Amino acid sequence: MSADSAADAADRIAKSFRAQGLMRHLGARLGRIAPGEVHIHLPMSADVTQQHGYFHGGASGTIADSAGGYAALTLLDPASEVLTIEYKINFVAPATGDELEAVGTVVRPGRTLTVCRLDVYAHSGEDRELVAVGQQTLMSVER
Amino acid sequence: MSADSAADAADRIAKSFRAQGLMRHLGARLGRIAPGEVHIHLPMSADVTQQHGYFHGGASGTIADSAGGYAALTLLDPASEVLTIEYKINFVAPATGDELEAVGTVVRPGRTLTVCRLDVYAHSGEDRELVAVGQQTLMSVER
Amino acid sequence: MSADSAADAADRIAKSFRAQGLMRHLGARLGRIAPGEVHIHLPMSADVTQQHGYFHGGASGTIADSAGGYAALTLLDPASEVLTIEYKINFVAPATGDELEAVGTVVRPGRTLTVCRLDVYAHSGEDRELVAVGQQTLMSVER
Amino acid sequence: MSADSAADAADRIAKSFRAQGLMRHLGARLGRIAPGEVHIHLPMSADVTQQHGYFHGGASGTIADSAGGYAALTLLDPASEVLTIEYKINFVAPATGDELEAVGTVVRPGRTLTVCRLDVYAHSGEDRELVAVGQQTLMSVER
Repeated sequence: MSADSAADAADRIAKSFRAQGLMRHLGARLGRIAPGEVHIHLPMSADVTQQHGYFHGGASGTIADSAGGYAALTLLDPASEVLTIEYKINFVAPATGDELEAVGTVVRPGRTLTVCRLDVYAHSGEDRELVAVGQQTLMSVER
Repeated sequence: MSADSAADAADRIAKSFRAQGLMRHLGARLGRIAPGEVHIHLPMSADVTQQHGYFHGGASGTIADSAGGYAALTLLDPASEVLTIEYKINFVAPATGDELEAVGTVVRPGRTLTVCRLDVYAHSGEDRELVAVGQQTLMSVER
Repeated sequence: MSADSAADAADRIAKSFRAQGLMRHLGARLGRIAPGEVHIHLPMSADVTQQHGYFHGGASGTIADSAGGYAALTLLDPASEVLTIEYKINFVAPATGDELEAVGTVVRPGRTLTVCRLDVYAHSGEDRELVAVGQQTLMSVER
Repeated sequence: MSADSAADAADRIAKSFRAQGLMRHLGARLGRIAPGEVHIHLPMSADVTQQHGYFHGGASGTIADSAGGYAALTLLDPASEVLTIEYKINFVAPATGDELEAVGTVVRPGRTLTVCRLDVYAHSGEDRELVAVGQQTLMSVER
């Protein structure tokens, strides 16, 4: 991927992200964008909790799903979009702290189907703990 | 399950649901509660969309996850709570319309582990279309 | 689906099944074939066990995967084949008894992607117990 | 883990592996065993194929499931055993060649639940290609 196309991918992703009403409503923000890898951050607030005040699993799942989708997008040509076919996520530790960070990483790119690994970390001050891991299948479609 | 314990389960679920900041923030509401089956509704709004104005997959996943968790809870004794261990969800049609309805149904109850089926429907006027299906594993813990 | 095309689908499935070396080697046999639903049976033997003498989870997964694939095939035109993109399976009870029966059922057919539900039952004399449930994504390709 | 306990874990795994009728019947063999990581190899033969002569997805799933289970076992005390609760596997390339190698790696160990990553590679001469990736949940139980 040339520097031009990498910058172009970042622009397309930022534009798509701003158009996702749910991301804005939850307070999520885009983080690092690299070929095959995208990060999304979600600060703790009373608007993203489950009944005990932890991050709701749905919040982890939502930012993980979007992070994987954008990771796939970094490796596709500008005329393509991606749809999530399915994902699976394991919650491996209580999700609490200052913010969540979801990392989507392409495991296997493909012209039609892309498979991503999803990792969600909880940050508490300097600490960073893995709280969820997932696996996702995406399909590329013409824009 | 006696009528008393069914009413009691509904009370516990309603209380837990009100304590979930994310459900309130998204505008979700509890629907039908029956032994082994719970429904959650989510009206369309600009706050739950992805970049094309459809319901975000994370919104479907979130209400499906909670519906399955509460379905499991209907079959457990009052001293128990449930944690989602993992879930997997397939998006089978674009999710658009007036509202989503997630249905969590217990497939296999167990003392420690419960497996639920998750179905998400999109309602458009009189139409109801299946838009996502999932499978979920929950663990019961002492409150 | 006409009676002709149903019979044709059954023929194509039987032929494909006979060509699967693993099915023959395990001793599996095709059962009921209906539009959108296929059953596969696997008798108990020392060749399909795990370390405690139960059916190995891999045996359940294998016949469930094939049952879902053939269920998808019943709804496609004769020039199509299916590939398993992914599946997920929960083991909900110890799998023991005389034989396993895997049932693949199409939940959502599609031109490109089909989603199936997978159920595996263990038969012991007259008893039939659900031992595994799964969800599978298949892609149709030109033969 | 001391050298003693590592050797002991390898012994327990080898013994359990020999007791799995399905592994023997398929011709699978144990490979590398390290703390939190176990490899299983499966040579190509007419007994493990699908209808086109590739490795059957069920064969990949079976050795991946066992590799993950044994990987979890390396981190548990000798009195524990593991049960597969569920797994999910994506098939990312046609599985052909001389042999398959499944690698189970513990992502998150836990007293009750362990989550593993599953990778399956196909070897053709010197080449090694990723053909399947999965994610698995296991529960430890008293022997």
